Amino acid sequence: MRIRIGHELIFEVPRPTPMLLMLYVHPDIAGALQEPECITVDSTAHVESFVDWFGNRAARIVAPAGSLRLRYDNVVEDSGRPEPSIEGRRLAPVQELPPEGWRYLLASRYCEVDSMSAIAWDLFGKTPEPWERARAVVGWVHDNVTFGYQYSRPTKTAFDVFTERQGVCRDFQHLAITFLRALNIPARYATGYLGDIGVPKDPNPMDFSAWLEAYLDGAWHTLDARHNRPRIGRVLMGRGRDAVDVALTTSLGSPTLTKFTVWTDQIPDE
Amino acid sequence: MRIRIGHELIFEVPRPTPMLLMLYVHPDIAGALQEPECITVDSTAHVESFVDWFGNRAARIVAPAGSLRLRYDNVVEDSGRPEPSIEGRRLAPVQELPPEGWRYLLASRYCEVDSMSAIAWDLFGKTPEPWERARAVVGWVHDNVTFGYQYSRPTKTAFDVFTERQGVCRDFQHLAITFLRALNIPARYATGYLGDIGVPKDPNPMDFSAWLEAYLDGAWHTLDARHNRPRIGRVLMGRGRDAVDVALTTSLGSPTLTKFTVWTDQIPDE
Amino acid sequence: MRIRIGHELIFEVPRPTPMLLMLYVHPDIAGALQEPECITVDSTAHVESFVDWFGNRAARIVAPAGSLRLRYDNVVEDSGRPEPSIEGRRLAPVQELPPEGWRYLLASRYCEVDSMSAIAWDLFGKTPEPWERARAVVGWVHDNVTFGYQYSRPTKTAFDVFTERQGVCRDFQHLAITFLRALNIPARYATGYLGDIGVPKDPNPMDFSAWLEAYLDGAWHTLDARHNRPRIGRVLMGRGRDAVDVALTTSLGSPTLTKFTVWTDQIPDE
Amino acid sequence: MRIRIGHELIFEVPRPTPMLLMLYVHPDIAGALQEPECITVDSTAHVESFVDWFGNRAARIVAPAGSLRLRYDNVVEDSGRPEPSIEGRRLAPVQELPPEGWRYLLASRYCEVDSMSAIAWDLFGKTPEPWERARAVVGWVHDNVTFGYQYSRPTKTAFDVFTERQGVCRDFQHLAITFLRALNIPARYATGYLGDIGVPKDPNPMDFSAWLEAYLDGAWHTLDARHNRPRIGRVLMGRGRDAVDVALTTSLGSPTLTKFTVWTDQIPDE
Repeated sequence: MRIRIGHELIFEVPRPTPMLLMLYVHPDIAGALQEPECITVDSTAHVESFVDWFGNRAARIVAPAGSLRLRYDNVVEDSGRPEPSIEGRRLAPVQELPPEGWRYLLASRYCEVDSMSAIAWDLFGKTPEPWERARAVVGWVHDNVTFGYQYSRPTKTAFDVFTERQGVCRDFQHLAITFLRALNIPARYATGYLGDIGVPKDPNPMDFSAWLEAYLDGAWHTLDARHNRPRIGRVLMGRGRDAVDVALTTSLGSPTLTKFTVWTDQIPDE
Repeated sequence: MRIRIGHELIFEVPRPTPMLLMLYVHPDIAGALQEPECITVDSTAHVESFVDWFGNRAARIVAPAGSLRLRYDNVVEDSGRPEPSIEGRRLAPVQELPPEGWRYLLASRYCEVDSMSAIAWDLFGKTPEPWERARAVVGWVHDNVTFGYQYSRPTKTAFDVFTERQGVCRDFQHLAITFLRALNIPARYATGYLGDIGVPKDPNPMDFSAWLEAYLDGAWHTLDARHNRPRIGRVLMGRGRDAVDVALTTSLGSPTLTKFTVWTDQIPDE
Repeated sequence: MRIRIGHELIFEVPRPTPMLLMLYVHPDIAGALQEPECITVDSTAHVESFVDWFGNRAARIVAPAGSLRLRYDNVVEDSGRPEPSIEGRRLAPVQELPPEGWRYLLASRYCEVDSMSAIAWDLFGKTPEPWERARAVVGWVHDNVTFGYQYSRPTKTAFDVFTERQGVCRDFQHLAITFLRALNIPARYATGYLGDIGVPKDPNPMDFSAWLEAYLDGAWHTLDARHNRPRIGRVLMGRGRDAVDVALTTSLGSPTLTKFTVWTDQIPDE
Repeated sequence: MRIRIGHELIFEVPRPTPMLLMLYVHPDIAGALQEPECITVDSTAHVESFVDWFGNRAARIVAPAGSLRLRYDNVVEDSGRPEPSIEGRRLAPVQELPPEGWRYLLASRYCEVDSMSAIAWDLFGKTPEPWERARAVVGWVHDNVTFGYQYSRPTKTAFDVFTERQGVCRDFQHLAITFLRALNIPARYATGYLGDIGVPKDPNPMDFSAWLEAYLDGAWHTLDARHNRPRIGRVLMGRGRDAVDVALTTSLGSPTLTKFTVWTDQIPDE
């Protein structure tokens, strides 16, 4: 299955502003792209790409004052299969956890593992098997949190989501990740494209999506507390401890986003 | 100058517990040690050492049930000079910032850069030069926060320190780091030994210490919001985004720390 | 000057629900009404009115399941003059403060006076005179907080407003009230009608408004951190420690507000 | 049964400071005192007593600079019986709730009813009867929170207690009160003397105690999430929404408490 992916972002930039961009797909899937990756910039700004700390492909730019237009378009080949079930997966003994797995057990900006540990064990401590526990976490978040774009705010943490029971994609994943880590299951945040493939069309404008990965049985498994069902056509862009690490753009200054368009469309077979 | 460093920790471990240890000195200074590093364990547990994500030397252990005693002792050769002043240091243009510098501009568990940005600019926005700004931040925290062991708690964030104006070493640094990042100055958390060398003896039992490093003029510079003066004999153990990344021990379970002794003593010249 | 005031609220009530209504004008100004006050209810529910703890006129109702329509309409005679300046007002010595004044010095749900005391003294401690200090508080909040309906949420406290710098009417007042109390100036929350009289018309739909009262020189004075200028035609409905005490409706259950209309219009002289 | 009650507090007062004192017993039990109430002050300060907003007896004083010693001693006649069980008590229909009952359903400084509502219903929503629900709340808090003086801090809210699971008397009650209100059961905070009568002696120095009152079946009933068992010899001093309203002393300034002694001793029968 081929999926056309891309986005266009326009910023108004009041003064020259360094920006960090996470707008490429992840190196792990770059081989499935039809064309070389490129962020087109309507200015003389130089886009300097590098692989970040988490293995994501990122870019830096010093945006000149004025209007900044960033555009990306590509086609990715996808298996067309939903992610596999975690049923039966056991928790890897921590001594078998690769060292980088530890970092995904710790608290991070939006995931207050320390503060929410007792709550996690209250809610899920009686579920016996790790994979059932992971599934219980994801199901609980899905069932107890209401989705709505109006519930988003930049400083919202897992804790806020737990008490307000409202949020967007990233909020669902932050809460589930926090519970998983508190239960000693390594969990990391993932972001990327997720079109309406194999599901009814979402009436909202297309947006980027967030999901999570949990480490069970020696491998990372995709889970999604927002949708709580296997999905087709996730196109990974970045992974990190939480949304801080994979913000689409991080600016040392105050550019204003004035246009934001994302596309993720299955290309019909000829 | 030679400094004897070391520590002894005893835990009661109710059931076999994986633990992450950050009890070595940092690889950057390991060459100044008199003897090879070793964590002595009074049990059959295997200590597996590795270099973590931040370049720190860490170890993993699965502590058996019972009493666990960890001991480290060594001698380090130190220059005997206090850290240099940051006077005159300019802020490196972000485009010259090495990619790993970006991570130290972002929010982390104990450093809510996003929430505290407006406050930082209120307080320090009028100080013109980056190095003066950095110094103003460190001085402000030093002058406005009261030290006391009774003010410590595991979930205390920079924000809490800002409102409560009380804390221990790590709290002082978290607040200063958060302000620095909000002002676009990369800042990271550092922990290690700091004995009473060249200063009056602290009546409290010796403890590990925390300080911070700020990135100015293409290099990392040591600053210390707790003491706010250059010190002699800092022995670096670990660096990270904040205390989450360099906790002495992180346990997946609930061992109880029953004894905790640290030593950091200048060895008199013969 | 005569002002037509009123409102219509429609709720969908899933099951019989006790509700507390704060929909009358305050007894202090009820004498200026043209007609007796009445909340019209489109149902058989009995409206039981009483004077609450703060001296406000409130009502209780057990809303039956189904649609609940509440309507109020009246005309109030107003002086047509803006509230007087606080210039020159000194702080009443606390020993002269009437006992009920103390309650408006304490922390309340949305006003974390305890946590924000150090911040208040940082910001305003150097302003010498109480009336200048009160004016400085109100001006600071007005200048540093951005108004927007999208920034509203039910659990937002003064603290959140201070860090997010965004909010609606009530948020501006909560922050200013918290600062004033921290500075030992009694301050209370007020809510009511405030039409666009003597000012350019606000393009947003008419809504209720919030302001605050500060106790200086033996009397309560109206201040408004949202508008920061004297206004004509405030029609007081309720006063309390903060918005908790004067919520328009408080329900022991989950009715959904489906329509909300408020009117506040100067009646042209014939 | 006769109980000797009293306390002695010594403050160092840097400059003349208005203070609000809640150091009398409650008017409801003043009739059981052996002698007229009196706060002895070692200074010329005038103690002005009044009944506060909640029906408590309070006093105001302007403490002069220097050392301030407050002393109270009395004997109270007590029934010697523990408080009755709430078993079988139903929830009064809200329409029968006296108007002042409403205030004890709302959020207050330390009781974030709004934020904790979903949590309360998660935990206790399935317990059918109000009295069983109230008992479940009190039992849950008792079983899940660890007592310790070192866990106290002035800004600790119900929410903090819920996540940290540690606290002193007042913290236990704040959490239970918050849950009760979220479950539509009016609940208020109470403070007073509680000696070790009929229970093993507490090795800690005698202190004031806190408990709570819940409104069931048309009356207020004593419950105690700290001890979770009926007790003999509670001597009520004050009631309020939470600890803000009945702080022993509230100062507009910064006196330092240097001595604090409380006594509550059963007087042996002759």
